[in-house]
Amino acid sequence: MRKHGKLIKQYDGESKLVSSLEEAIRKSGLKSGMTISFHHHFREGDYTTNLVLKHIAALGIKELTIIPSSLSKVHEPLIEHIKSGVVSEIHTSGLRGKLAEFISDGNMEKPIVIRSHGGRARAIEAGEVKIDVAFLAVPRCDEMGNASGNGNQTTCGSLGYAMVDAEYADTVILMTDDLCEYPNMPASIRQQQVNYIVKLDEIGDPAGIASGATRYTKNPKELKIAEYAARVMTALPEYKDGFSFQTGSGGSSLAVTRYLKDAMKRDEIKAAFALGGITQPMVELLEEGYVSHLFDVQSFDLVAAASVAKNKNHHEISASEYANPSNMGCVASGLDYVILSALEIDKDFNVNVMTGSDGVIMGASGGHCDTAASAKNTIIVAPLYRGRLATVKNTVTSVITPGSSVDVLVTERGIAVNPARQDIMERLSQLGLPLVGIEKLVEMAEQIVGPAEAIEFDEQVVAVIEYRDGTIIDKIRKRKQA
Amino acid sequence: MRKHGKLIKQYDGESKLVSSLEEAIRKSGLKSGMTISFHHHFREGDYTTNLVLKHIAALGIKELTIIPSSLSKVHEPLIEHIKSGVVSEIHTSGLRGKLAEFISDGNMEKPIVIRSHGGRARAIEAGEVKIDVAFLAVPRCDEMGNASGNGNQTTCGSLGYAMVDAEYADTVILMTDDLCEYPNMPASIRQQQVNYIVKLDEIGDPAGIASGATRYTKNPKELKIAEYAARVMTALPEYKDGFSFQTGSGGSSLAVTRYLKDAMKRDEIKAAFALGGITQPMVELLEEGYVSHLFDVQSFDLVAAASVAKNKNHHEISASEYANPSNMGCVASGLDYVILSALEIDKDFNVNVMTGSDGVIMGASGGHCDTAASAKNTIIVAPLYRGRLATVKNTVTSVITPGSSVDVLVTERGIAVNPARQDIMERLSQLGLPLVGIEKLVEMAEQIVGPAEAIEFDEQVVAVIEYRDGTIIDKIRKRKQA
Repeated sequence: MRKHGKLIKQYDGESKLVSSLEEAIRKSGLKSGMTISFHHHFREGDYTTNLVLKHIAALGIKELTIIPSSLSKVHEPLIEHIKSGVVSEIHTSGLRGKLAEFISDGNMEKPIVIRSHGGRARAIEAGEVKIDVAFLAVPRCDEMGNASGNGNQTTCGSLGYAMVDAEYADTVILMTDDLCEYPNMPASIRQQQVNYIVKLDEIGDPAGIASGATRYTKNPKELKIAEYAARVMTALPEYKDGFSFQTGSGGSSLAVTRYLKDAMKRDEIKAAFALGGITQPMVELLEEGYVSHLFDVQSFDLVAAASVAKNKNHHEISASEYANPSNMGCVASGLDYVILSALEIDKDFNVNVMTGSDGVIMGASGGHCDTAASAKNTIIVAPLYRGRLATVKNTVTSVITPGSSVDVLVTERGIAVNPARQDIMERLSQLGLPLVGIEKLVEMAEQIVGPAEAIEFDEQVVAVIEYRDGTIIDKIRKRKQA
Repeated sequence: MRKHGKLIKQYDGESKLVSSLEEAIRKSGLKSGMTISFHHHFREGDYTTNLVLKHIAALGIKELTIIPSSLSKVHEPLIEHIKSGVVSEIHTSGLRGKLAEFISDGNMEKPIVIRSHGGRARAIEAGEVKIDVAFLAVPRCDEMGNASGNGNQTTCGSLGYAMVDAEYADTVILMTDDLCEYPNMPASIRQQQVNYIVKLDEIGDPAGIASGATRYTKNPKELKIAEYAARVMTALPEYKDGFSFQTGSGGSSLAVTRYLKDAMKRDEIKAAFALGGITQPMVELLEEGYVSHLFDVQSFDLVAAASVAKNKNHHEISASEYANPSNMGCVASGLDYVILSALEIDKDFNVNVMTGSDGVIMGASGGHCDTAASAKNTIIVAPLYRGRLATVKNTVTSVITPGSSVDVLVTERGIAVNPARQDIMERLSQLGLPLVGIEKLVEMAEQIVGPAEAIEFDEQVVAVIEYRDGTIIDKIRKRKQA
């Protein structure tokens, strides 16, 4: 199979600047039935997706497939565009808030498609989804379209997801609030890829970047889990000079970095690289010399966003370079460790990060299954239960990452090792850590919060979950309403 | 039309390092009749093209099409590979020395194809030529294939031509003499693009980079031409803060930089960027603040090669970013000025940089027609005659750049402006420069060296010259031998 080829268009020497978003949409030739894309680097601070769809709706364009790299609570206005027929199909990594409920309630005719970040890059490169027009908000660009993630008004750091769209979309429209002198270099998106540029007053609220998934925990239970996870990491043979790791979003996962740093200091061990959504603690590891390189597909906070432009060993990478399984080696393929969160994990180590225990979509696939499949050691960090709901349970509501990719589960009450990894079991058994079988953790959780109530679903499929290689790993059905 | 898509191959987690070039060739699946590519960043110092072909010949593979970005005198051993049927077709920008004579003498069945640097990138992207295996020498890379142009043993600076091959070739083999720790970042070629890596003792002689076209002149005639050219540049309206320029290789062309710098100092004018094959004088302009950015597709000397890695505003660009006419704006498309050499120029301003006045191939298309077509002002610098041969003449031996792309011809005896550029004529007429009609220059040259002897050619076409857009602009025929 060959990579999908972007439509070849020849620059005519005219200015790429257009006076309004409406004009850009008209010039792009966007028509009903086409596919458009957005990126989610601004997370809850994204202003442009809603704005673009408002203009598209006003132009009477309908039946669009939208493939944002992800969606957040801020995208609630999509509900109206679905109702009015402007948007008829959605492919995304995640979905939250009222929009997620709306879709969980079966209000779209076509099921949405959930993809991992690596899976999205793969699908675009393979031409399984073809982007007619990409609408990409960029914190800075010049009049030819050389664009970067740090501007005078707004900042999002890495433009890793947008880079894939710029490379493969037939038409690329940039929106910026900082139109700077030519040439804006170094550039994440290059002038050769860009068709039109629109200057807007504001493209996003950088404060929204750090919202949601990337809080810094003081919760003792989360800290305990993080400490255990760091002890597991440092007990394994990959913990040596030149090792590599990624920590996902979520309180415990992020907190692992702190404990890991103490260990690295004590043992005088340095990491070759850290990968992923990059956060302030990782930037500190880089600046203090504990990690030699950061690979950044998405900056999870403003410290990380500023660091991409400032630190020469903080490297922006595209989602394809990050986690695409169908190339000659994404960066994730070299991971020694990945630390990931879970909404639910079952007795076969299958992980759900997509749906709540009430069956409603509330999360994102992200790089979860990509990095779990790639890393030598995949460690899931999760509390045994949350509120009155078990995290560790017999069956997960939906599967994002198959248990075969998971090596260790760390909870505050015990650590379960996948039976396939006897080597890890042996290493850990010498450390006095609370090792238990995963069935035991399921029992413990059930004893505390009681047995999980079965969720009742209708037949209607509201979401199809693609594994990173494009196979369907699960389906989410409409929740049955009282 | 869509871009050609590289074959999608999936990394299997095995080491990409192979023990020998022979093994790499075997693993690549190279077969008779296929197309392979090389880059010419080492110019006369290239060790690997000959080496690879020697191994291919030993394996009994035949009838290959080779598409190096260019060829030099050092590639004379190709003659034997042509004779023995290992190589049956050549696409290149240039050709020199005995190999060029061998081809001029009609010793290949199929005519070679001459392309400009932008035209080569265009043809590869459009799938007009499909590279089965790219053999790319890189001064440094890590075990996954992240490669760059500055290594411990050798240095070539920009890998701009190689970047195109790495992006589009179905199989990419890197050869390096500096295998470094992972990750080698920043990288010009990325691990996702690379299939196999071979460690060699030596990949090239950096001293060979500065040989040939990039000498620094002390010739008074060349300096006079350069001084005139700089006066022409500074007289035109584009000469203001934020302007851009490129100087080609060749004595006068390179010397323009010196006079331009004096003017910029005097007038307190700074350039936004300089482009091209980058030389030491341009690096000095960058470091001294006369130029804000350098875009470098090829480092013409070791100072430039070192600067790419050192100066943050010295940017490596691919040949597609440099001069491909079929994208949304190569960097050349933003040029205010380009200063180019000529072997011959005719009364219609058509330029030959390919064949000597004896009809023998001796030069390279390079970025000549690309930048001439792109720049607002194209200035050809050339002596009226060389030895006993006129440079300015009624008819050029072969056409690389059409006269419609040329605005001004500067010789030591007079400056001719293309009649289509009356605006330039008016500007220059106020300066006391020796303006003359180009026919007058043809006459003057003829008076000095006598009329050009007509070259006799046979019917056989030995080379087809493609213009940057893929149309055939000229053909070179076999010279008639006495």
